[in-house]
Amino acid sequence: MGVIILGIDPGLANTGWGVIQRDGSGCRAMSYGCISTKAIEPLAGRLARIHDEVRTVISRYAPAECAIESVFFGANTKSAFATGQARGVALLATAGAELDLAEYSPAQIKSVVVGSGTAEKSQVTYMVRMILSLDHDPKPDHAADALAIAITHARLRDHAALERLGA
Amino acid sequence: MGVIILGIDPGLANTGWGVIQRDGSGCRAMSYGCISTKAIEPLAGRLARIHDEVRTVISRYAPAECAIESVFFGANTKSAFATGQARGVALLATAGAELDLAEYSPAQIKSVVVGSGTAEKSQVTYMVRMILSLDHDPKPDHAADALAIAITHARLRDHAALERLGA
Repeated sequence: MGVIILGIDPGLANTGWGVIQRDGSGCRAMSYGCISTKAIEPLAGRLARIHDEVRTVISRYAPAECAIESVFFGANTKSAFATGQARGVALLATAGAELDLAEYSPAQIKSVVVGSGTAEKSQVTYMVRMILSLDHDPKPDHAADALAIAITHARLRDHAALERLGA
Repeated sequence: MGVIILGIDPGLANTGWGVIQRDGSGCRAMSYGCISTKAIEPLAGRLARIHDEVRTVISRYAPAECAIESVFFGANTKSAFATGQARGVALLATAGAELDLAEYSPAQIKSVVVGSGTAEKSQVTYMVRMILSLDHDPKPDHAADALAIAITHARLRDHAALERLGA
């Protein structure tokens, strides 16, 4: 059985997640989804839901490794702050589980999955579908992005500097 | 007995906290401190410690209300992202506790505590000491800032739009 990898695309409004398993030289999708919260909900409640749902995914699929998008510098401060909050609670959810953690930049992810660091979102979704032999496009976009992050890690993990997460 | 207020100044390297109690028209300090984490520690472990220590403060002092600095727009994306992660797990720690949450901007805090939105850090520390009748400067700076946030809330809370945090 190949290693199980959790990819996370964190965001306060939408946190995508995708679980894949290495299968010989390829990968297969185990499950994927998106945790959506609304701006009218209390902030702490939104963060608690992201945290709890990521924890549920981890206990259900027991991934050994986790990949997440690294800091992006293009965005504005406000969105970086909001995304940071979501990323913080998502990473916290991995903390008790002894997962190895790796970070990849958006350009790295596109480059590995599509072959170009400036690929369009639709190309990423298309390639994720091909690589995982899905009979449909993975939706929503945040889930497809999370699968792309997991695929990137599956391809680069032998070279990645893994960080052992403490409890 | 007056309302007990927790002020939080979130940061990945240093999260300041301060607990005060309204006492007639004034305030008294119950406790304050700073949760420091080092960049060499694994990220998820740093976030877990911030989360756990804020939770411990809440269970020890049972504040009814919590005040935190709002989004700052002056900082760069990278520091906003790091601060956002710390803020996310600090807010998550308040989630099960049914605390009312209020947010204040740095300029609002300085304006309430010192009387000028562009006051120096040393003036904030000095005024926090005066207002709380401490016989020494509250240290480190992050703890003094957290006390200043709590004082701001004590003064403005009757006018603040409180957000009831869900579980």
